[in-house]
Amino acid sequence: MKIALDAMGGDFAPASTVAGAIEALKTYDDIEIIFVGDQARIEQELTGLNVPAALSQRTSIYHCTQVVDMGDSAIDAVRRKKDSSISRACDLLADGGAEALVSAGHTGAFVAAAKVKLRTLPGVDRPGIASVMPTETNLFLLMDAGANVDSEPKHLLQFGIMGSVYAREVMGRKNPRVGLMNIGTEASKGNELTKEAYKELSRAQINFIGNVEGHDLFNKQIDVVVCDGFVGNVILKTSESLAGGIFSWLRRELTSNPIRRLGALLAKEAFYAIRRKTNTEEYGGMPLLGVNGICIKAHGNSSPKAIKNAIRVAREAVAHQVNPHIVEEIARHEEMLAAAAAVPSSTQEVHAP
Amino acid sequence: MKIALDAMGGDFAPASTVAGAIEALKTYDDIEIIFVGDQARIEQELTGLNVPAALSQRTSIYHCTQVVDMGDSAIDAVRRKKDSSISRACDLLADGGAEALVSAGHTGAFVAAAKVKLRTLPGVDRPGIASVMPTETNLFLLMDAGANVDSEPKHLLQFGIMGSVYAREVMGRKNPRVGLMNIGTEASKGNELTKEAYKELSRAQINFIGNVEGHDLFNKQIDVVVCDGFVGNVILKTSESLAGGIFSWLRRELTSNPIRRLGALLAKEAFYAIRRKTNTEEYGGMPLLGVNGICIKAHGNSSPKAIKNAIRVAREAVAHQVNPHIVEEIARHEEMLAAAAAVPSSTQEVHAP
Repeated sequence: MKIALDAMGGDFAPASTVAGAIEALKTYDDIEIIFVGDQARIEQELTGLNVPAALSQRTSIYHCTQVVDMGDSAIDAVRRKKDSSISRACDLLADGGAEALVSAGHTGAFVAAAKVKLRTLPGVDRPGIASVMPTETNLFLLMDAGANVDSEPKHLLQFGIMGSVYAREVMGRKNPRVGLMNIGTEASKGNELTKEAYKELSRAQINFIGNVEGHDLFNKQIDVVVCDGFVGNVILKTSESLAGGIFSWLRRELTSNPIRRLGALLAKEAFYAIRRKTNTEEYGGMPLLGVNGICIKAHGNSSPKAIKNAIRVAREAVAHQVNPHIVEEIARHEEMLAAAAAVPSSTQEVHAP
Repeated sequence: MKIALDAMGGDFAPASTVAGAIEALKTYDDIEIIFVGDQARIEQELTGLNVPAALSQRTSIYHCTQVVDMGDSAIDAVRRKKDSSISRACDLLADGGAEALVSAGHTGAFVAAAKVKLRTLPGVDRPGIASVMPTETNLFLLMDAGANVDSEPKHLLQFGIMGSVYAREVMGRKNPRVGLMNIGTEASKGNELTKEAYKELSRAQINFIGNVEGHDLFNKQIDVVVCDGFVGNVILKTSESLAGGIFSWLRRELTSNPIRRLGALLAKEAFYAIRRKTNTEEYGGMPLLGVNGICIKAHGNSSPKAIKNAIRVAREAVAHQVNPHIVEEIARHEEMLAAAAAVPSSTQEVHAP
């Protein structure tokens, strides 16, 4: 299985991308990595890591000359930097040279390049980023976590269908519970976007459980949380920041005197258990659902471990092939709408007096 | 100082509102409480609490017959339930019968009643709810935390000015640092609303520090975070839910075996220190800034302690009287804009070639 890695994307690239890929190659013996980026810099990293021949045989380099900077606008990046690592990685995927791609670079450029080079799936207007979020007893999928800044109700509907398919096919949830992120539980609550999206999601052939609020995210059984990319990105980053903040605060309080330090030592496994499960490095990869190809977004600040886990997510996505299921479910929904529209309205309203 | 309390508002009203008010009367000897609501039920609660005569002398009841339910639409509630406890509490404030009001009831009805009965301050288009949020080293003000569902750039500008005044006058911050909640740090990032709001905030005579992201909230020194009410409400509820979730999770992990239990016992003060500071009951009151009167919103699920603290916030607000400062700052901003518009553009662009 060939996976294209945007070797130049991310705050610590190419050091962390190359090191993460080597870790992935050690763990998963059915993958090959194509490093996309500056050949000299990638080779330098590989040399520094003393990669054994058995692993380096499963690597190759696709040289390109440009890198998208965090300050670049997304569209400009795709239009002007045609030889950038993210554009070239998308080209590889589009040409069949790789089965999946992983990037920790500029989110906007990643989404724009994927849309332009791979196109969206039939029936999908906009792709969305699906982020796995941990809770005490569950993992839920947050979608869209930041692929789009302004969304319409039909986009939220499609995020709901795509998220439901991913939760079922990849996360193994039977009949996934899909909630709409809102600020009130009643159907009448929310802004113009969520009120309309509520109606659209209610008609979809998914297990729509209605509105969910911030209160519900970490203490209610939800499989997919649908929201626009602005709200999703705020939830994702706020949650990470708050969880990190609480643990840093705990560390300070727990080391402030010898008795607390002893207590913390005795209880340390409790902290490790939670830290492990809330560690974003473990959930390194967020699939961009709705494009015609398997594209996995890793965090900008990805460590080698996070890159390795993003590659794991790419590998799982190749194994599960959710895209045909997404196309099928979206088509089924459109057929249902068309059939409903074809029925005379008197028949539809048979239950109304 | 007379404070009107919506005795019927909140999940546990009137039990928790009456009990919280009595606690406040014990602590603050300069306040009087006017219970607004069903006289018989309020008297029943007071009887049950065996309130000493010295305290009950400082209470009175303003009887009314209706209560806004959580299922009511905000506007309907104000139009149709004219004798509801929240409407009558606003009437009292408008007529000078009270100096501040506190309600733990329906947020939408609270905001609508305040707008209709008290009107907004001169120059303010929409009021916003300001919520104090705790971090490891700081408290910041989140505004708007949910008074509005759809906002325009000028509303966000006004939230920034009002939040800055409150942070300065009530929280004692010199030159408060005001950030715009966004999903990217550059001025070009975000959705249509935040891009325009960025421009407006940049021109305001406040200490605007630019965009802030979810990452920054709990680890950067920020005094005021400006956002629309939908996003603010999501941040508020998600943060509370996540913090609560982590502590519940910690409790489970720390009690799962005898060694961890011993460790937790030795370190318990560390947990208490954090729990105290993140306990929403401590920040029981969120001022609705921008209306012509002092209106404090308490959480729907307020305990007596949270009600007591909301009354404390009302008392502080009466002491600080931020409204004249808000009117002054908004007027100053409008004068500045008018003056800039009056200057011929050639003079303004003197530095451009």
